[in-house]
Order: sequence, then structure tokens, then C-alpha cells
Amino acid sequence: MTNTSDAARAYSRANGERFLEELFETLRIPSLSGDPAHKGDIRRMAEWYAQHLSGLGLQNVQVMETAGHPVVYGEWLGAGANKPTVLVYGHYDVVPALMEDGWDTNPFEPTIKDGKIYARGATDDKGQLFIHVKALESYLKTAGAAPVNVKILLEGEEEVSSPNLMPFIEAHQELLKCDLCVISDTSMRTIDDPAILHSLRGMTYIEIEVEGPREDLHSGLWGGAAHNPANALVEILAKLYNADNTIAVPGFYDDVVPLTAEERAMIAKTDLTPEQFMQSTGVPQVWGDANFNIRERIAARPTLDINGLWSGWSGPGPKTIIPHKAGAKVSSRLVGNQDPHDIFEKLKAYIESITPPTVKVNVSLLTTGKPALFPFDTPVMQAAARAYEKGWGAKPIFTRGGGSIPIVAEIADLMHIPVVMMGYGLDDDGLHSPNERYTIEMFHRGIETAIVYLEELANM
Amino acid sequence: MTNTSDAARAYSRANGERFLEELFETLRIPSLSGDPAHKGDIRRMAEWYAQHLSGLGLQNVQVMETAGHPVVYGEWLGAGANKPTVLVYGHYDVVPALMEDGWDTNPFEPTIKDGKIYARGATDDKGQLFIHVKALESYLKTAGAAPVNVKILLEGEEEVSSPNLMPFIEAHQELLKCDLCVISDTSMRTIDDPAILHSLRGMTYIEIEVEGPREDLHSGLWGGAAHNPANALVEILAKLYNADNTIAVPGFYDDVVPLTAEERAMIAKTDLTPEQFMQSTGVPQVWGDANFNIRERIAARPTLDINGLWSGWSGPGPKTIIPHKAGAKVSSRLVGNQDPHDIFEKLKAYIESITPPTVKVNVSLLTTGKPALFPFDTPVMQAAARAYEKGWGAKPIFTRGGGSIPIVAEIADLMHIPVVMMGYGLDDDGLHSPNERYTIEMFHRGIETAIVYLEELANM
Repeated sequence: MTNTSDAARAYSRANGERFLEELFETLRIPSLSGDPAHKGDIRRMAEWYAQHLSGLGLQNVQVMETAGHPVVYGEWLGAGANKPTVLVYGHYDVVPALMEDGWDTNPFEPTIKDGKIYARGATDDKGQLFIHVKALESYLKTAGAAPVNVKILLEGEEEVSSPNLMPFIEAHQELLKCDLCVISDTSMRTIDDPAILHSLRGMTYIEIEVEGPREDLHSGLWGGAAHNPANALVEILAKLYNADNTIAVPGFYDDVVPLTAEERAMIAKTDLTPEQFMQSTGVPQVWGDANFNIRERIAARPTLDINGLWSGWSGPGPKTIIPHKAGAKVSSRLVGNQDPHDIFEKLKAYIESITPPTVKVNVSLLTTGKPALFPFDTPVMQAAARAYEKGWGAKPIFTRGGGSIPIVAEIADLMHIPVVMMGYGLDDDGLHSPNERYTIEMFHRGIETAIVYLEELANM
Repeated sequence: MTNTSDAARAYSRANGERFLEELFETLRIPSLSGDPAHKGDIRRMAEWYAQHLSGLGLQNVQVMETAGHPVVYGEWLGAGANKPTVLVYGHYDVVPALMEDGWDTNPFEPTIKDGKIYARGATDDKGQLFIHVKALESYLKTAGAAPVNVKILLEGEEEVSSPNLMPFIEAHQELLKCDLCVISDTSMRTIDDPAILHSLRGMTYIEIEVEGPREDLHSGLWGGAAHNPANALVEILAKLYNADNTIAVPGFYDDVVPLTAEERAMIAKTDLTPEQFMQSTGVPQVWGDANFNIRERIAARPTLDINGLWSGWSGPGPKTIIPHKAGAKVSSRLVGNQDPHDIFEKLKAYIESITPPTVKVNVSLLTTGKPALFPFDTPVMQAAARAYEKGWGAKPIFTRGGGSIPIVAEIADLMHIPVVMMGYGLDDDGLHSPNERYTIEMFHRGIETAIVYLEELANM
């Protein structure tokens, strides 16, 4: 039996070169969301996608305004009310890229070398989001219909923390109503090890400032009876960890969902050796909580890292002062079901409780993100696994991502739907770095996988 | 009996206005030693002093070259070989001063307000060094001779750590041969509480750098198994102190000369109340080693202060990195008989011993200064005490200075002579700050005290 997905896959293979050329058009538009100078490029990019989606036969295509950069929306609802509706989320904005940062080629003129596309946004996220657009096209241009209803939502502010996305979704819940959300904005270890993420870490990011004297003091005239705020700060920060590298903040682990034996067995398959970890990072030795393997530590367990430290004199040579203040940026990567605001309160209370009365401390919240944790024995997850097996050609693992995409948990919570993270990138694609790249084969196999997924969703 | 010091004192009072005008001439020359643009001013200043000393009848007056800024030398040896020779040390260079730093008046146009001279260098050290010049003049212009032999050595690099002074002294030991050295470059609490410093703290100033990963890591992708070097640094720094605010470095206190009961009784007279300390510094509470009073902590006990801290991101907002390195500047104020190099070795060994193998550490020495500690029951010290009693009009206390003037110990060690620190400044003169000031009455009483001191030295 020839089913419609076979025809769509054949179409996608036959049109692979043109798909790439279209992707290159998107990569040439420097849609930097963080730089006001590129506001026009962001708009041009949104309009490009809208025009493209309309051209493919999607309906109700709109460039929709928000308080910031616009959202692009388009839908194909021809599968009917009896079939599931999938919401594809992607983002069309990118982070900055300058030749002087170390790019070998123009970051906004895609260049192919050794089967890879070098360009800003190639993997994050223009290359990955386009996979879903081309999968839908492949159905519409062959069978004239897709197996399920598809809504496409493209954001232009992901790289600046999506300040306007949740208000947009809240305001358009009827329009966006769906049964699941698919996001392709993550990665796998190697091309033969596809991964479906069922978890992302969340975040509580704080700033700590310790104040001592009114102004910098001469360390000779006053040193010995003034508690140096830099000394006080390091004493406070050193108490954030226990000797066994667990976090000392009372109640910190209270809401952590324990890893099941089944999940640990699955994670063990993707564990790194100490040598691999040392080679990837350059650290002299692996560190962490000895009760968990390396993959668990970096993806399935919460952390508490100092991201920045400052006090007094950091220029060349000596300066003999007692600084009047000292500060640190500290962030915690959270796992399900830790609540970022609860963790903030616990951090703040603990830091205040261990601050001696010889200095003053101020703990402020910079940003939060909820962790996401989805079960993977659900129909939509199992359908995704089958899609990789048939479309990609390899059985995927369900794994956890150590990073944070706060909108994943927010979308799931607000819309009461599962979010399936089918990453079509590679771990070493260098996103946000110079020479960001995307493997062409990943793009093509991704489209075939996405094609199969729509069919699998119809057959759940 | 009218002795020669009475005549000299009368002369100094009669000529007080002119002395001030001459001092103002020196304050108008911006002799900044740290700024190459002021090299010509430094030279002009040195030549002004040389010409002035020659005009007063000193002999062998020279502007002597060093590898840096020149030294001014002059001598009056008419008292003969049976009389002591006193070497007066002062420095004619100043630190920078700009109106935009907060000066109310031009820092290089001395301005009198409420009995004080506002100008850069007014108290540090042009005002204080000139006291000795004018004391000698007062003898030479009345009796035609001073009670003792006087050598004057004026340095032009004190504010840049005197890199060329000790080589200069070593190369001219015969020229500079003397029985004691007098330095007026310190201060007293109030005009009625003169102080003779018999001790200064020394210094060991180090930089600590902790390295972790090869480059900054994404805290989501790698956090949990990479020891964050900023976390490692704070853990190391927190171990520098014990819970009782004593320094935890093994052997740190080994060579500290214990305070005698007599000295503690004397120091107790100059102790500060917690309220005074809090008001002066703005700290919320006094800190330190409870076994010592506040004055002892800030002047007679060693310290270990963080002078600077840096790592990762200190700009606005969050940045989710594990920094690849973290650093600190740390300095210890030392007391007799701690050796700065021995303390460096102890610090380095301790820091290395507490650094975990999950990071690398580098401890480097930035600068050292020997502490100075002189007994005060010696003839030259007791003569100084009598000079204040008779010349200043108040009995001085012998006290310790918390700051560091490394050349004091170096001169004493090299020349095997005592150094007497007769400070004629006030603690709140604001040296190195905007609106540096010097009380005119201090200048005149200083000259009379210096006059009496030369006589007391002759009568030892």
C-alpha cells in the first residue's frame, strides 16, 4: 500500500535542492531581535514567512502585532475536527554575528562546506523550523491534504527571552487551540542518535550585593575592624554548597521529582565518560554530585552556579582598598517540579540567614523560567518515537535537556497540552557562536521525519 | 638662659607668613609622579627645592639622577663630627587631582578656608617636608648654625612605590651616612593629640586566578559536572579565615611580636569606640578578632583583605555562563616581625593545598613591603617625645600606624638606624582624596617642634 506519507517523502526528496535555496533566502535576512537597528529586517523576515506560507496554501496567514516584534501565524485545518491539531512553534529571530567574532565566512551569506550550511540561524532556529513548513508543503503538493490539522506559530523574540509571547498566546487561545505543540529547537549527539526531549531545566537567576563601608576604605588605615564585603560575599557564596557538592539551601531539593529506574537506565545509554566530558569542556577533572552520572548531573539534576563576580579593583597591579561593596550573579537550573519563585524565596531566605550583621545584603531576582517535564509513555511521544524510526531511520531515545526554554513549560501549563521537542540539530552545531552550522542531511532527514510524524499523529 | 632654639622659634613665628607663601609656590607645581605628561613639572619641582636649599646655605645641594625621577639632596654638616647627623626624608611628588573628582577649588592653586590650606600635596607631603626645611632655616638665619648635622633627601617617586629609592640609597651610603632618619608623612587624631609612630604595617599583595573549563560554558548544557571556577574561588577564599575572624593560613602568626602590656595600655588610650568606628567608615557593625581592641586590630595586628574580585558577567541582566576563570586580589597587612616573602610562601602553599583537583589555581606575588617596628624607649624616640612636649605643647603618644611605608623598614635595615615618624598631619586631611587639606596651625607648630627636636637630638 502506498500511503500519502510515501508520496510526500518522495516529493521532499525531489525538491530538496529548492527547499535549501528557500532556506538560504531566510538565512540571508539578518533578523536580530536584540538590536533596534535590525527592526526592519525582523519585519522583512516575518513578511517573508507570511508570504511563503500563503503561497503553500495555508489559510488565515497573518503577521500579528505584539508589544515587540510580530508573530507569524498560518493554519491548515483541512483534516477536519476528528483529527488532532498540532501547533508548530519556531522562532525566526537570531542572535548577533560579526565577522570579527571569528566567523570564517559571512554569517548572513550561507556557505556550504563539507555538507554543512554555515550561517547565523542555520540550526537555531531557521533551519529547524523550516523542516515543518516543508513537511506540510510536501503533503499539500502531493495528496493535497495533510493527515492532521496544522497551525504554525513563528516568534520573533525568542533570543530576547520571549517577553511578549505568553501575553500573545493568552490573548489568542481560541485561534491557537490544539492537541499538542511540536518544537524543533534542540539537538542530538550524532546524526544516528536522534533524541526526543521530554524535559528541560528551568531557572532562577538572582543577583546578590553585599555592602560594607560607606565608600572604599584604605586597607591600611581601617583594615582589621571593618568586615570586607568581598570577604563576606565569598563566605556567603561558599555556603551555598555542601562538601559533597550538593546544594545547601534548605528545602532546595524538596520538589525534585525523583528519577525512575527506567529513566536512569535510559539516561545511562547517553552518559558521557569523564574523558569525553573533560575533552568537551577542558576541565581538569569532572565534578559534581557523586550519586548521579555525568548526563544526569548536566541534564536531570538542578544546579547553582556563580555566573559573575565583582568587587573592588580588577585592573593591573595592586590597589590597597577595602571595597565598599561586592556582588555576584548566581543562577540555578531547576528540574521538575521545582518552582522558580519558590526557589528564589528559599535562596533569599538562606542567604539572608547566613549574612553576618557586620555587612548588609540585598538579594534580587533577575529572571525565572519554569522547568518542563513530560511523561514519555504518552501517545504523542510514542508517535514521535515511531516517526524517527520510520522517517529518520533510527530509534530515538527520550532524554532530558539541561538548558532552558521557559516558554515550553508556559505553553504546556497555559494550554494544557503536551509539548514534543523533536530536535533536528547536532550538539556541536555551535549555536550562538561564530560559524554556526547545520548539516544538510539533518535538514532532509528532518523533513521526512516530520512528514511521518503528521501521519503517526493521525493514527494514534 | 636664652638658648638657640628660642631664637629659632621666634624667627619662625616672625617669618610664618613668608614660609606659607613659599610653601604655596611648591603646591602650585603639579609634580605628579605617575603621569609621564608631568615629567617636566617633576623636574621643575626638584630644581625649585635645590635652589631653595642652596639659598638657605645648605651645602652640596644636588638634583641627583635615578632610573626614574630625580632625588634632591642637600646637607648642613656644621655641627661637627661629635654631634649626631639626622637624615630628613620627604617626598615632593603627588598623586593626581582633577576638578571633576570633586575638588571645590583648583587643586594646584592653594586656597585658604577656615585656617586650612586646600591643595594637592598640602599634607602629603609638601606641607610636612617643608617643616624641616624651615626649621633648619630658622637656626641658620639666627644662630648661623644648627645643633646637629642635617641631611635632606627628597624623593620624587613615593606615590609610585619608590622603585628607585633603595638602589639610590645603596649607591650613596657614604653620602647619606647618619644616626637616624626623620620622616614627617603621617598624622595625628586631633591637633592636641600628637603621635609618634613607632610601627607601620607591611604588605604581601597577591593575585589568585582559578581556571576551570577552556572557555565560558553554557550553564544549561554543562552545568552540574563542571566545577565552576567562581564557585571554587569563593570556596578557597572563604577558607582564608577562621570562624573567630582570625586568619587560617598555617603559620601566619608565627613571627608576630606579641604586644606588651605596656604597649596595650598605651594603645588603649587611642582606642576608638564602636560608634566612632562605625561613624568613620559607615559599616553597620564592627568586625574582627575579639581578642584585640579596635585600634589594635587596625594598627597592630595583621590583616588579610580581598581587594578585588572578578569573574564572568558583571554587566546588567543575566548571562547564563559558567565562567572559564575567576580571580581575586588579596593583600595582607603585616606587623613586626612577619616577613612578606615568607607570608607569600605560606599563602601560596595554603591556597594550593585547599584547591580541589577539579580546577587549576595560580597564585602570584604582586608586591611586598616589610613591616617596621621600632622600640620607643630609645634616645631618639624619647627626644622626639620631649620635642612635642616643648615645641608642640602637648605630650605625644607612641603609636602604631596601620598603613605601609615600605621604605621605612628598608632604610632602617640597610642603614642600621632608627626611623622616627613625627607626623604633622591630621587623620582627616583627606590625602589622596579631593580637597586634600592642611591646617595652617599644624604647619607652624610643626616647625617649632622640629626646631626643638634638633636641639633635643644634640642633648641626648
